[in-house]
Amino acid sequence: MTTSLHDGLDLEQVSELAAQLRVDSIRSSTSAGSGHPTSSLSAADLLATLMARHLRYDWDEPEAPGNDHLVFSKGHASPLLYSVFRAAGVVSEQELMEGYRRFDQRLEGHPTPVLPWVDVATGSLGQGLPDGVGIALAGKYLEKSPYRVWVLTGDSELAEGSMWEALATASHYQLTNLVTLVDVNRLGQRGETALGWDMDTYAARVEAFGARAVVIDGHDLDEIDEALALADGELDRPLVILARTLKGKGIPGVENESGWHGKPMPEDKAEEAIDALGGERSLQVRGPKPPTLEPAPHSPRGAVELPVFTPGEEVATRKAYGPALTALAEVDPRVVALDGEVSNSTGVADFVEAHPERFFEMFIAEQQMVAAATGLSSRGYLAFASTFAAFLTRAADFIRMAPVSRVDLRLVGSHAGVEIGADGPSQMGLEDLAMIAATQGSTVLYPSDATSTAALVAEMAELSGVSYLRTTRGGYPVLYGSEESFPVGGSKTLRSSEDDAVTLIGAGVTLHEALSAAEALAEDGVNARVIDAYSIKPLDGAGIREAVAATAGRVVVAEDHHAEGGLGAAVLAALASEPVTDLHLRHLAVDGVPGSGTTEQLLAWAGIDAAHIAAAARAALEG
Amino acid sequence: MTTSLHDGLDLEQVSELAAQLRVDSIRSSTSAGSGHPTSSLSAADLLATLMARHLRYDWDEPEAPGNDHLVFSKGHASPLLYSVFRAAGVVSEQELMEGYRRFDQRLEGHPTPVLPWVDVATGSLGQGLPDGVGIALAGKYLEKSPYRVWVLTGDSELAEGSMWEALATASHYQLTNLVTLVDVNRLGQRGETALGWDMDTYAARVEAFGARAVVIDGHDLDEIDEALALADGELDRPLVILARTLKGKGIPGVENESGWHGKPMPEDKAEEAIDALGGERSLQVRGPKPPTLEPAPHSPRGAVELPVFTPGEEVATRKAYGPALTALAEVDPRVVALDGEVSNSTGVADFVEAHPERFFEMFIAEQQMVAAATGLSSRGYLAFASTFAAFLTRAADFIRMAPVSRVDLRLVGSHAGVEIGADGPSQMGLEDLAMIAATQGSTVLYPSDATSTAALVAEMAELSGVSYLRTTRGGYPVLYGSEESFPVGGSKTLRSSEDDAVTLIGAGVTLHEALSAAEALAEDGVNARVIDAYSIKPLDGAGIREAVAATAGRVVVAEDHHAEGGLGAAVLAALASEPVTDLHLRHLAVDGVPGSGTTEQLLAWAGIDAAHIAAAARAALEG
Repeated sequence: MTTSLHDGLDLEQVSELAAQLRVDSIRSSTSAGSGHPTSSLSAADLLATLMARHLRYDWDEPEAPGNDHLVFSKGHASPLLYSVFRAAGVVSEQELMEGYRRFDQRLEGHPTPVLPWVDVATGSLGQGLPDGVGIALAGKYLEKSPYRVWVLTGDSELAEGSMWEALATASHYQLTNLVTLVDVNRLGQRGETALGWDMDTYAARVEAFGARAVVIDGHDLDEIDEALALADGELDRPLVILARTLKGKGIPGVENESGWHGKPMPEDKAEEAIDALGGERSLQVRGPKPPTLEPAPHSPRGAVELPVFTPGEEVATRKAYGPALTALAEVDPRVVALDGEVSNSTGVADFVEAHPERFFEMFIAEQQMVAAATGLSSRGYLAFASTFAAFLTRAADFIRMAPVSRVDLRLVGSHAGVEIGADGPSQMGLEDLAMIAATQGSTVLYPSDATSTAALVAEMAELSGVSYLRTTRGGYPVLYGSEESFPVGGSKTLRSSEDDAVTLIGAGVTLHEALSAAEALAEDGVNARVIDAYSIKPLDGAGIREAVAATAGRVVVAEDHHAEGGLGAAVLAALASEPVTDLHLRHLAVDGVPGSGTTEQLLAWAGIDAAHIAAAARAALEG
Repeated sequence: MTTSLHDGLDLEQVSELAAQLRVDSIRSSTSAGSGHPTSSLSAADLLATLMARHLRYDWDEPEAPGNDHLVFSKGHASPLLYSVFRAAGVVSEQELMEGYRRFDQRLEGHPTPVLPWVDVATGSLGQGLPDGVGIALAGKYLEKSPYRVWVLTGDSELAEGSMWEALATASHYQLTNLVTLVDVNRLGQRGETALGWDMDTYAARVEAFGARAVVIDGHDLDEIDEALALADGELDRPLVILARTLKGKGIPGVENESGWHGKPMPEDKAEEAIDALGGERSLQVRGPKPPTLEPAPHSPRGAVELPVFTPGEEVATRKAYGPALTALAEVDPRVVALDGEVSNSTGVADFVEAHPERFFEMFIAEQQMVAAATGLSSRGYLAFASTFAAFLTRAADFIRMAPVSRVDLRLVGSHAGVEIGADGPSQMGLEDLAMIAATQGSTVLYPSDATSTAALVAEMAELSGVSYLRTTRGGYPVLYGSEESFPVGGSKTLRSSEDDAVTLIGAGVTLHEALSAAEALAEDGVNARVIDAYSIKPLDGAGIREAVAATAGRVVVAEDHHAEGGLGAAVLAALASEPVTDLHLRHLAVDGVPGSGTTEQLLAWAGIDAAHIAAAARAALEG
């Protein structure tokens, strides 16, 4: 039976569609030998009703600006999502049966945007809803489009704090274009969830977080349809539909039983289950069409007029960030910014003043901040998100998922290292370089002066993937004139001579210390080459190898970060690729838990100040 | 005026104490030239009443088992905490005035356990309450002690999802010994919070999350006292006191004004403020004494009888974890375990069965899981916390703070790398080694077989700081007999001869691939030395340097992790410390975003399987 139906499917037909989605969820996961059929079955009635009667989507044009968005926060229910794609006619039965979870196929174990109908990758629970908030922010405030964002979440993932960050943010920004469907099937991976079917408590939490909670029987199509229709009316708050469901619904002996999480049916059991569901079907269903809209204005970029800083003037790199971003935004309407309630510290406050309509205050919710940037990026915006470098670690899992989501994140972390002084170790970013460098396809930038900071902010607009700008708290002399360029993957040689005896490599504050060390060494008659490694990933490996070779293998690397995963590690990797004979490398980095103090005291304590760099250089010279 | 008062301070005296705390908060931060006096002043009445009349604490014996615990989740209010310490007579006026925020002093910018009255470090907002949940779990379920855990939080930090993970967990575990004081002073760092003084919404959220909310005027001592006294009665839920306060309370012109966050008063303004508060005081106050209790039984450890595995048998390392932990727990009552709702995947399920009373299910709330381990560790327990390696990144900021808290975390991450196969990239730990290695003082272990896994679990019990065990999804042959030992910082040479031409270094699944590669090379007449680098940090640098030297500088390192911050980086650092002349190193690691597939397909795709290792070895031999 092949039926093609459009719009206005009645609920009896929806029931048939739901049965098909169940059957296909079972078939696809059994054929793959892995997957989560039972977590798919609990939500099949929700999805059948949604796709047939409420989701405004042009399946032939996934990029259509008026399309609604469907985010599977419970990404493990991918068999259901892919069965929806089959019912929409965009994935063939063959692909569903032979492609699911197979190598080099696009129907991956958890959905990713290698599929054109998927906005963001899910599978790390608690991320789809926060990402959806980002898409809804774009729709309401930037695109000003009537599209809705529908997010399907599990109940287990409501244990993630990030989900509550998302609802708090959604209510703060009055995201009436965001509809969350919670599949409350009671059972987590290894047993019952903390709240089971306590729908009242779920509803109370949702309402307290500023959303409208509607509790329904998730297998009653009338109730589902009525709840989904609320999205068409006037809403004063985000809508959360709490659907009481049965895990494995429709499979006798499996329905509502523990022990079936993440397990495909064995073939014989699958056959029985498919029989019980009335056998295979081949409905093709298209729901309501989206309105036809013009794409949001993404004008080509003009030339950026970056702020100009006077060499010698003392300017904190964090203070150069806001003006540079503001300048960038003048010529590029795609530029938006987010911050974790520290805009006056990160330097983005200038941008907030200049472009308030393109700034989203995320309060102290770094996970939501990065998730919102993810959603905004999926809509084509250049989202810059800033907080203290230390607190970006709060969002590590969201940063990790960015390459899987194929989004571009532009992250800015201020207050790097022990340099910050009196505030103490909780505020010191000492692991941030390692975190971002280990992210697939990332770029890590760490400028030492205001001019290079501004230039690198402009460079970041051109980068894909996760890019990171590390800034410093204190003011240091501007080193470069505005005529200089700072390509990603480059470096600057600030001091060199024909007879350099040692290479000193620094970035951020340690570059200034390296310059001082070079002065001190010069007084002893030792010439040092000084390199500004403003691009840590990719590193200017060729330039650094050349410098090290020119200084007889003698090199000192100093960084305001732990020894692992930062500048020193990048230099070692670059030197290993074409080994230098007779390498004498000294790597100065922060070891131990710092306390409070002045910048000078702490740089000395960490052994990364000018005196220690000079001493290390002398030691390298001696052997 | 020096007054010594014990217990039963009346509220008029408490008011004097509050004034002293305010004056000292202003004085200390002004003298330091930095700090957060206004955030201290809003909570001064709360703290004065608490310390004088409710906190059962023997200030002369901070380790007394009956002591209540006081956690400053709003760690930036350290001037207030240190003023409390001065009022208790354990910190001198001189230390407060000359030590605060100074180098090499214990009154750091944010409190840490270098002070004996501080359990855990705070300063990364949203961590103190989750940490407090861990202490309360220890008190209620393990120590079975009547102590209470009092946590002071800010209102801004309620934006962190981790705070709601904490309340959900506190209510699930009925932590009636946990009292949260929320200082709702309305003003965040750069302006008003999302909810301002909307006490009703705060109360609704707190109640919905299963705690009892009591809203008070945070400057009315009667109301404060009455609310705090609730902790003495029979509670059926955790108690949350929502105190409406004024930031900067008591300083004319500053009170309730924006723009004063994190700013000490200039000296003249400080003098005025101190005058307005009635001048300096020197009250010494001690509140109620704790009950005298025996220390919790922490018996000495006997010999562990680890599970025995038969060489050649195929056992997943993750499956060896639970039995090993169970064996350890048999002889060590300090061993407890936590898991993020995946106990059947991480392997800890065996422990849950054997020692249910020493297991805490944290559901899918990894931040709370690590925070609970932090709190438990602060009470002397050996807390092992497990989830997928990928999802440990969710708790990166909590892991970062562990060394600042001087706690020992024992983390176990399963499902490492592309080896997991069909589930796809969202579930693959590919950044975990970098994250943990960059953590101050950490240990990173990555065993390849069940025997070494069990041995390393036992080793972890002896380690301080953050230690990490990385386990693998699939089953691989047991390589070692139970007589072998696996010291941290060691390695195993599994294959060697007098004429080895190349060294192959692997860990986890890549060790098995390296062994296969060595077989293939042997068929070509090439002898390869194979090293099991089960201890990545510290690495057996001497052993690896020796092997690389013995094989003429030819070495292949393969790892199921991104290239940055993992095994390859550790090997490079070890080789750089005593450079090998003529190094020919090939580093095979995962680059690109994986999809789904079988283990074999994905290891081949990533270029880290036996064929790629053998090819890299041949390339190294050629040049």
